[in-house]
Amino acid sequence: MKKIEHIGIAVKDLEAANRTYKAILGAEHYKTEEVDGEGVNTSFFKIGDNKIELLAATRDDSPIAKFLEKRGEGIHHMAFLVDDIEKEIIRLKSEGFRLLNENPKQGADNKIVAFMHPKDGNGVLVELCQEK
Amino acid sequence: MKKIEHIGIAVKDLEAANRTYKAILGAEHYKTEEVDGEGVNTSFFKIGDNKIELLAATRDDSPIAKFLEKRGEGIHHMAFLVDDIEKEIIRLKSEGFRLLNENPKQGADNKIVAFMHPKDGNGVLVELCQEK
Repeated sequence: MKKIEHIGIAVKDLEAANRTYKAILGAEHYKTEEVDGEGVNTSFFKIGDNKIELLAATRDDSPIAKFLEKRGEGIHHMAFLVDDIEKEIIRLKSEGFRLLNENPKQGADNKIVAFMHPKDGNGVLVELCQEK
Repeated sequence: MKKIEHIGIAVKDLEAANRTYKAILGAEHYKTEEVDGEGVNTSFFKIGDNKIELLAATRDDSPIAKFLEKRGEGIHHMAFLVDDIEKEIIRLKSEGFRLLNENPKQGADNKIVAFMHPKDGNGVLVELCQEK
């Protein structure tokens, strides 16, 4: 893992959360991007060497909608930047970690991504992401 | 806010979690520190420009013990480094945010810290921290 690329926060109302995080961080979000396959609309802030990604559901059956229903708003995942996601998946599997995605899938922000099983990360949903 | 200083993860067993995060990050934790006032034992990892802080309860009535009982293991807080914590508290209050600590208190890692009310941060427990 090279670095924390971003922290993903599940929110109910993306516009309201943009205002909240603008006030917290003292900076505007710099882009909004919908990932149709995941049923999610995202908004990105830069802070130091990291990003904060706000995530709002666009469909009732999306993973974020289910997370919000079950847990409420809050941190959804922690994403690590990797150089070679396929290699990192193989390494983590060899260490005994379960991956939710055996094959990387399309993520936001021009990335391919894969998630680890949160039960294997002390309740943290760890995302691996690689620049496309 | 200057940067994300660390991500705090509540864990049940610090030694087991140290092994898990060593395997995930590919690096050893570099220190362990007990914060007696908070009833917590902490372990720190470096990753890029950030740290990951694992937090385990040392008492049944500590905030981390209560968090674990209510929510289970997972991300507990997101900490931002600030230059002047008193000034940042005043700024956030003027923006309408509620602080859990009106006055900074002693944290781990040679920091003074204050927490924002998680309801005001879309369910995220935001910590401000300043080097002592």
